[in-house]
Amino acid sequence: MKIDVLFVSEEAERIPLTDQCVLVIDVLRATTTIVAALAAGAPVVHPVADVEEARRLAQELPRAILGGERGGLPLPGFHAGNSPAEYTTDLVTERPVVITTTNGTLAMRRALAAGAEAMGAAALLNAQAAAEWALEQGRDLTIVCAGTEGRFTLEDTIGAGCVIERSLAYEPRLDLTDAARAALRLWQEYRSDPGRAFSDSFHGRRLERLGFAEDLHACARVDGERVVPVWHDGRLIPYLCDGSGNRS
Amino acid sequence: MKIDVLFVSEEAERIPLTDQCVLVIDVLRATTTIVAALAAGAPVVHPVADVEEARRLAQELPRAILGGERGGLPLPGFHAGNSPAEYTTDLVTERPVVITTTNGTLAMRRALAAGAEAMGAAALLNAQAAAEWALEQGRDLTIVCAGTEGRFTLEDTIGAGCVIERSLAYEPRLDLTDAARAALRLWQEYRSDPGRAFSDSFHGRRLERLGFAEDLHACARVDGERVVPVWHDGRLIPYLCDGSGNRS
Repeated sequence: MKIDVLFVSEEAERIPLTDQCVLVIDVLRATTTIVAALAAGAPVVHPVADVEEARRLAQELPRAILGGERGGLPLPGFHAGNSPAEYTTDLVTERPVVITTTNGTLAMRRALAAGAEAMGAAALLNAQAAAEWALEQGRDLTIVCAGTEGRFTLEDTIGAGCVIERSLAYEPRLDLTDAARAALRLWQEYRSDPGRAFSDSFHGRRLERLGFAEDLHACARVDGERVVPVWHDGRLIPYLCDGSGNRS
Repeated sequence: MKIDVLFVSEEAERIPLTDQCVLVIDVLRATTTIVAALAAGAPVVHPVADVEEARRLAQELPRAILGGERGGLPLPGFHAGNSPAEYTTDLVTERPVVITTTNGTLAMRRALAAGAEAMGAAALLNAQAAAEWALEQGRDLTIVCAGTEGRFTLEDTIGAGCVIERSLAYEPRLDLTDAARAALRLWQEYRSDPGRAFSDSFHGRRLERLGFAEDLHACARVDGERVVPVWHDGRLIPYLCDGSGNRS
């Protein structure tokens, strides 16, 4: 079984992902927030690229929570922004979430258009569970980093490296591409303090300037949740790993 | 001054390089070989994408040496392949070299098409000199990794990281993008034994299987030459750094 990493989702426009299992990573903050929302009790998350499309869909779905951001900032009239801590049990239990984010949603669309057979969402927050789910699919795995505005980001890359490290703990004979090896080494470099990668990252520093220091703290939490958002019928539903690689 | 890295040259098709200084890196082996050829006394190297175009140009240029590879292997009727050691003083002194390689030539074309204002070629072999030349240009620097068949390679990335380290020694206040920081960290990881990056690399292992172990040794040599191949009037000419940042 092979593990590959695309450092920006634009790569999926020229590299086919047919028959592959894909994990999309947007550590700051889309996939961390989606994991948090499902862990807090939302039964489903609809990732939507367009703000108006998100508003429309939220109106159609009973009791929907509308969330997301543009340029890192919350949108007028939305219930929540893109901070993991906003998606509390009080807010989202048994309510569908419609979320629109800049890079994460686009990355999922590109992975699907490239032919991904199975797709989940990963972050540092669910790295172990995401690795378990991905290995269970029995397919080559490509981790697609959302990137920021089409560029490589340190935070998504260490997220990918963390998932790879977790995967190797289950299956040491995985075949790593050069990109996967690089991601793993960068993760090992930052493992003792993942928040340091955010301080080294352009987007991490921008979020700090915008006042999202607490989000950075939440996004640096590793393996805090055991839920994997898994793509099913056009939306993300929670897949719970029990720690043995079996669904609970 | 900013330093950025594109991990595959395809990125230059969507990221403009206008007004920038560009260093193209193809450690295994195109840019290492071009540095070796100029260091051995060739007055000029013509990088050419197409094999037939290379043959035609070599016939037009008096006493030209025709070199290059496809799929890592030498081409019939050529004077030399893509091994740095083939470009000896005996072979190339005062003779123009026409060289066709798979990824390196393509990377230079893409960098120029993206609007690069100045372009040089770098490898581990001339990292220090390439950094000096690039800083002298007084422009933002983008290091374009050739990659292999459109994919990220460890060897080009550590080459980029080595040039960045050398640049920081001259000018510690350079602004590094996430990609540049990642390249620097990966270089620091492999610095004590750059050949180890080739063993970890898909393309490095392939070259070893093809019998090019000696080339790997030559390409792992750091700062062995002080010449920078610099793009001028459609070809690469030698720029000699004297170690003080001045042309000698």
